Amino acid sequence: MIDTTRLLALLCGAALLATPARAQSAPRDLTLAWTEVAPGVWRASAGTPERVSLLGIAGGTPQRDGLARVGSAPFPLDRAEIQAQRVDGKLALRFPLGAREQLYGLGLSFRALQQRGSVKELHVDHYGGTDNGRTHAPVPFYVSSAGYGVLIDVARYVTVYAGTAVRRDSKHPPVVRDRNLDRRWSAQPTSDAVEVLVPASGATVYVFAGPTPLDAVRRYNLYSGGGVLPPKWGLGFLHRVPTLSTAEQAAEEVAQFAARGYPLDVLGLEPGWQSASYPGTFVWDRTRFPDPDAFLALMKRAGVRVNLWMNPYVAPSSPLYASLAPRSGSHTVWTGIVPDITLPAVRTQLLQHFDRELVGRGVSGYKVDETDGYDRWLWPDHATFPSGMSGEQMRQVYGLAFQRATLDAFHARDRRTYGLVRASNAGAAPLPYVLYNDSYGHQEFITALASSGFIGVLWTPEVRSSRTGEEWLRRMQSVCFSPLAMLNAWSDGTKPWSFPDVADQVREVMRLRLRLLPYLYTAFARYHFDGVPPVRAMALEPGFRVEQPATPGAVSSTENPYAVATLRDVRDQFMLGDALLVAPMFTGDTARTVVLPSGRWFDFFTGAFAGAGEVITVKPGLDRIPVFVRDGAIVPLLTGDRVHVPAAGEPADLELRHYGTEPGSFRLYDDDGTTFAYERGDFSWTPLVVSRAADGTLRSETPAPPSGKPFGYRTLTWRMMTPR
Amino acid sequence: MIDTTRLLALLCGAALLATPARAQSAPRDLTLAWTEVAPGVWRASAGTPERVSLLGIAGGTPQRDGLARVGSAPFPLDRAEIQAQRVDGKLALRFPLGAREQLYGLGLSFRALQQRGSVKELHVDHYGGTDNGRTHAPVPFYVSSAGYGVLIDVARYVTVYAGTAVRRDSKHPPVVRDRNLDRRWSAQPTSDAVEVLVPASGATVYVFAGPTPLDAVRRYNLYSGGGVLPPKWGLGFLHRVPTLSTAEQAAEEVAQFAARGYPLDVLGLEPGWQSASYPGTFVWDRTRFPDPDAFLALMKRAGVRVNLWMNPYVAPSSPLYASLAPRSGSHTVWTGIVPDITLPAVRTQLLQHFDRELVGRGVSGYKVDETDGYDRWLWPDHATFPSGMSGEQMRQVYGLAFQRATLDAFHARDRRTYGLVRASNAGAAPLPYVLYNDSYGHQEFITALASSGFIGVLWTPEVRSSRTGEEWLRRMQSVCFSPLAMLNAWSDGTKPWSFPDVADQVREVMRLRLRLLPYLYTAFARYHFDGVPPVRAMALEPGFRVEQPATPGAVSSTENPYAVATLRDVRDQFMLGDALLVAPMFTGDTARTVVLPSGRWFDFFTGAFAGAGEVITVKPGLDRIPVFVRDGAIVPLLTGDRVHVPAAGEPADLELRHYGTEPGSFRLYDDDGTTFAYERGDFSWTPLVVSRAADGTLRSETPAPPSGKPFGYRTLTWRMMTPR
Repeated sequence: MIDTTRLLALLCGAALLATPARAQSAPRDLTLAWTEVAPGVWRASAGTPERVSLLGIAGGTPQRDGLARVGSAPFPLDRAEIQAQRVDGKLALRFPLGAREQLYGLGLSFRALQQRGSVKELHVDHYGGTDNGRTHAPVPFYVSSAGYGVLIDVARYVTVYAGTAVRRDSKHPPVVRDRNLDRRWSAQPTSDAVEVLVPASGATVYVFAGPTPLDAVRRYNLYSGGGVLPPKWGLGFLHRVPTLSTAEQAAEEVAQFAARGYPLDVLGLEPGWQSASYPGTFVWDRTRFPDPDAFLALMKRAGVRVNLWMNPYVAPSSPLYASLAPRSGSHTVWTGIVPDITLPAVRTQLLQHFDRELVGRGVSGYKVDETDGYDRWLWPDHATFPSGMSGEQMRQVYGLAFQRATLDAFHARDRRTYGLVRASNAGAAPLPYVLYNDSYGHQEFITALASSGFIGVLWTPEVRSSRTGEEWLRRMQSVCFSPLAMLNAWSDGTKPWSFPDVADQVREVMRLRLRLLPYLYTAFARYHFDGVPPVRAMALEPGFRVEQPATPGAVSSTENPYAVATLRDVRDQFMLGDALLVAPMFTGDTARTVVLPSGRWFDFFTGAFAGAGEVITVKPGLDRIPVFVRDGAIVPLLTGDRVHVPAAGEPADLELRHYGTEPGSFRLYDDDGTTFAYERGDFSWTPLVVSRAADGTLRSETPAPPSGKPFGYRTLTWRMMTPR
Repeated sequence: MIDTTRLLALLCGAALLATPARAQSAPRDLTLAWTEVAPGVWRASAGTPERVSLLGIAGGTPQRDGLARVGSAPFPLDRAEIQAQRVDGKLALRFPLGAREQLYGLGLSFRALQQRGSVKELHVDHYGGTDNGRTHAPVPFYVSSAGYGVLIDVARYVTVYAGTAVRRDSKHPPVVRDRNLDRRWSAQPTSDAVEVLVPASGATVYVFAGPTPLDAVRRYNLYSGGGVLPPKWGLGFLHRVPTLSTAEQAAEEVAQFAARGYPLDVLGLEPGWQSASYPGTFVWDRTRFPDPDAFLALMKRAGVRVNLWMNPYVAPSSPLYASLAPRSGSHTVWTGIVPDITLPAVRTQLLQHFDRELVGRGVSGYKVDETDGYDRWLWPDHATFPSGMSGEQMRQVYGLAFQRATLDAFHARDRRTYGLVRASNAGAAPLPYVLYNDSYGHQEFITALASSGFIGVLWTPEVRSSRTGEEWLRRMQSVCFSPLAMLNAWSDGTKPWSFPDVADQVREVMRLRLRLLPYLYTAFARYHFDGVPPVRAMALEPGFRVEQPATPGAVSSTENPYAVATLRDVRDQFMLGDALLVAPMFTGDTARTVVLPSGRWFDFFTGAFAGAGEVITVKPGLDRIPVFVRDGAIVPLLTGDRVHVPAAGEPADLELRHYGTEPGSFRLYDDDGTTFAYERGDFSWTPLVVSRAADGTLRSETPAPPSGKPFGYRTLTWRMMTPR
């Protein structure tokens, strides 16, 4: 028998011998002073914000006109409940969260849109199969179903506890349950806060008012500078040829598109255009492109722009190397130096070279690869840069800074550009780049499309290759209803017509893409002037319920299947522009369900009634991607079977489609399509109206062309799609 | 035509307008002063190390005798090439790396053992499907094939760039190649360094000498305190019953083991033993266990120890709650408070309660669950604790501190324990816990076994359920050759005999496990006294080549298939103790290759020659797990078909197996098997020798029992396994 007194002494002794941690400085409360910096937009400094910020690098200027149009609104949260502390040498933030709120945003996501209950370490990286915060655009912005948004504007790896952390002193503590026997036990007791850890001395924090989630997103986009308005040709079809294609081979491929009648507005050249790649020289390879000017002139005659692949790592053999080397980071990437893109001298040198060698010759834009990750390829987080930025900060902003620098250079030439980039971040709405990556899950690509609209970025579900004609067509259908319709054949060399069984249907949907130009261009104008993302998740759609039930399990799928469906994370359908709901089909599926928001919806192709605020099942056949139009909507389409978007000054004819049984209107946007003249007021909004006459019938009004403003359409023909 | 001068002005203007980052303080070089703290072990402070360290929390005392036996050795690296800098408020370290070195360690890994070319953010967490550094034991220790080890002793999320980062000023810069045309281009140019980012003001760094990788690992284990020596019963079979089992049901299950002749030494009770779980009360549930003392007495009579599941989160209904609440963290986990386990008062309170309610009644140990992650369940990194430790630090050490505290309590009773834990870290070698998790890939479990030996932890490939008898048997075979042979039926309720087609074979391998006790116990004694891990990857085996070729592709699989095989990451076979090579079979396979180190190897079951320094293919049939023995090795086994390990003082008989054609020897370890008397010298090492007689034949020598030392074996019978 052991002596209990002795045992206790031993226990206590053992415990006393253990070295306790030295108490560090206790958490220190920081004051947040909110300033309304635009109507419905508030800013506060938490701690000592770093000089480098995401919005600063993105470089946009708030769209004050647009913000004024959205109007003012009250501060959407209880100010006293927003707390900041200095903890462990870092900044900890706390925002209140209601029990029924759902959260969206927090970086480009591929698996889920609803973020409540997740933890994200927001970190520029490739998407590695889980939505853990490492992503191409780890934007530290979230929007709540309760109708507000929050941005943590800091170029650091921010960790967001999106309704997971529960404080001991919580004002709304979750119910204690016994997992042994209580079936209501949950692995995630309800948290009443979003907590954020910023590994820095401070951050600038923004709150964006609602009242709707879309209003908050609009304010975020407008404050970032308003959404990008691409050149019209950017909304045509983009085809990227195999990496080692020669000028002759590329020209032959363009000729094939024309001969076969497939739309093509932009040709993409991959690494082989350069004399060396990974790292790059940024000069033409003269074996494959002996006369770049002649090649570019040929492409121009063919009505095709040229986009060039690059990554920012400079080879020792590049003419840029010697002068950039002293202005580069401590580490190399693929043996190339990493120019400190935040230094004015570096920007100037790069852009003057690009301008002389590329843009001045006619190149339309870039595909900026490899600015995201893997960690094992890029510089480490402790790399140093001449500007004083750390590797971590540079990782968070490199893609952003590259986008801004090249936009400024194109802007200086008064030419728009529209390209591709692998890494972005907050404030990117005005930047003329679309995100893409190396993963290839069709469903994930569609979720990313829906996700992009929460965080002010664009995404393309690019098509590369397929195992079957069915997959090829399904992917082509999706990409033709996205911000950038691209076939990226850099590796496979696949052509739109590579699958003969679906070659006609592929051409048809590519042509439909082109016909949608007036509608899409207006959607982007709405992005620019009004902050409305051209591609949006259903959760941003009015009439789509997104709040959590008051009690888990309170919504019955038997009694209210529609409520249950909208509570689900609807991530396989999305809104495109104001009126279209797109519900892609995936390989192997012959039917799918579509959750229609409240109101009546009609089939895009036939005008037939599809459903109203309900879950429908569609079986569209292989030829069709399910697309629906809201009641009363007007959708302008180009007429004819085009292969290029109309050039500036080239007259085009419009078909104005009206859907449904209700009156409606549409403001059709136009400008010259290629320059920044729209920034100087050279644009037009033309109201298209269908009204109800005294006799109850619908009547369309053909507008007068705007006077003294650009309007590129010759004839406007109404087409009432829905039979009465 | 655009005016070029104006364009350049615009470009420069745009660049100048961009806000450059304010230069932060430049990287500051820190001095590393190396002190030899034990023979072949050096320590240096880099920057200002934090008070909380991994070795400090693990709490071991260096095994000076063992270290002296390993002996002295020169500092294994060029001191001048080890660099420390203060960068971006953090510590950056740089260690030289030769072109041909391979690296191992850096946390418990499930997919790969070779770590060169990877980046790890070492972070206590569940294993989430990728070896990214988030793992149950993210030990910041690596060992090189060149024969040295490095430990970064800091309780932070350390990022290790294991031969990925390439500095611009590298002394051994990689060759620049053009990816367009040069097939030798690699996505990972050769780096000449391991770079480490410590997000803290400093860290204590250790270097462990070789000359072999195993020597470095031994020094690391011995410096940590020497490996754990489990009680003998811990090496028997452990069975965990379904979570809501009552005392009666548990007793019935134990009776079934006995009736069917299946070995059983430990019974594990899951959450249902407590009156509430997730969070826990730490008191017996009186509905399921109305009389714990009677139950424990019954188990004792049945020769079965009792292990109790718990996690450290304390329910409001627990008697511990009121006094622990003020000494707990800022956040709750599953509505339970998180006691600050580093506070002496908390340790004392917990351990006194455990001692009174559990250990004093006869409980043998714990299964400490849920100390690893997910992020969305545990406290956030900015959580605060009364000791002053941050959430990040606490995350890195909670499992470690719990292991140390409970070990100390058992030590105070002079009773050994052996349990399970989900989270560990550096310095864990002396702690009597085996890691486990919720993933269930059989191959991954075997890789984890091999991985565990690099970093001073133990791992069990626990068996839970299977789809087929084949899978059941294959998993049972593996777990019976591991540090903890366990069936964890907490959820499924599966029994060893649940698959009738393999019930006999399962019993046979479980009995073989028991028969191996003298061999396994000696292997653990070697862990304790000599630092040799009982389970080791092939890369730690002498005669197993692990260096990279001088030039990639230089080793031809046609000319030298064995060299190619050993360069591969051999992660599906491992060494158990000094002499056994275990090569598990996986479901669906009828044959597998085994890479045998140099020297001759023999089949464990038949003694037949198997191969020598070559890759063999075996087809063992379903009944057998391939196990091989090195030439001359002696393997002591218990005789008879036991169901319990021998109790203290219970005489047992030994079969001494000799394998192969060469002389050999084995030092058989023994002690009382249950107390810490071995720390006071109460143990014996008995030399077993097979020598070559003058006539060339092999002759075994039966040793005299040691005098005055514990030696629990009655008869020793030699058996020459290999026919001459």
